[in-house]
Amino acid sequence: MTERVRIIGIDPGLQRTGWGVVDTVGNRLSFVAAGIVRSEQDGSLAERLVELHDGLAAVIKAWTPDEAAVEQTFVNVNPTSTLKLGQARGIALLVPALAGLGVAEYAPNAIKKAIVGAGHADKNQIHHMVRVLLPKAEIEGQDAADALAIAICHVHHRQSAAQRMRREIGIRA
Amino acid sequence: MTERVRIIGIDPGLQRTGWGVVDTVGNRLSFVAAGIVRSEQDGSLAERLVELHDGLAAVIKAWTPDEAAVEQTFVNVNPTSTLKLGQARGIALLVPALAGLGVAEYAPNAIKKAIVGAGHADKNQIHHMVRVLLPKAEIEGQDAADALAIAICHVHHRQSAAQRMRREIGIRA
Repeated sequence: MTERVRIIGIDPGLQRTGWGVVDTVGNRLSFVAAGIVRSEQDGSLAERLVELHDGLAAVIKAWTPDEAAVEQTFVNVNPTSTLKLGQARGIALLVPALAGLGVAEYAPNAIKKAIVGAGHADKNQIHHMVRVLLPKAEIEGQDAADALAIAICHVHHRQSAAQRMRREIGIRA
Repeated sequence: MTERVRIIGIDPGLQRTGWGVVDTVGNRLSFVAAGIVRSEQDGSLAERLVELHDGLAAVIKAWTPDEAAVEQTFVNVNPTSTLKLGQARGIALLVPALAGLGVAEYAPNAIKKAIVGAGHADKNQIHHMVRVLLPKAEIEGQDAADALAIAICHVHHRQSAAQRMRREIGIRA
């Protein structure tokens, strides 16, 4: 029997950080939970980062994922936005690592390719495929759908790595 | 008698985050401690952010500051560097806030003005003045000196705010 592995995908943002949890057993994929951690816009930056920290820590405590995957943020044209996103992303990487989880990072194109099969798919195609792959998912907003896409991307990369390993063992045997 | 207030200044960076702690009692300023929290360059980004988190948390636990001040990062021309700095800065803001400290932010020019009296002073002038203001300081490297400058800037802003308040109370009395 293949072991169940639970993955959390995180789509970082200062205002809204999307998260999505999926289970994978062999080739099967199933939806566990998804949602959004928000920070109050009238708080100071430090307070907002604490809100993201506490929200993500609570999600990880509640759903006990085994591994985490975070989107490699698209570098914005506007440096102020890039800095803001960087700060939120720092928290998104920190919280699962503090909980002892391995944290993988994937570029937006790798995520699109894993979900739709093409590196230049648009958001609607991604969200449509997430719903096809996880028919039982209850998805609150686009950020949660993006986070589920990141989790699915990580599942695919884990499976390819495992297949490569099995092929190598096969050749050697 | 005026109460002692202990301030930590933090100069965030992914490779090296400088920190400096000073005490202020009325107009008097004294050096407490300063140093650098480093992250291993061969670690993953998440591991490096955990190193910064753990290092800063240990510093705050050891020196028990009452308030924190963090430099408002200069937005770099290179978006990749800006994102990297943003991630480290997220941790620098988060850790004191998680410890219950208020976290003030100051722009580089405000810090230069508070220390040297001019918004366009160079690094050498800043470091010279930090040594003049804190003659007993043992300063390990430029990042620690920058962090002490940030702490001193916060002390000045607190004092001006207190003076404004006293003047207002005087007018009303």
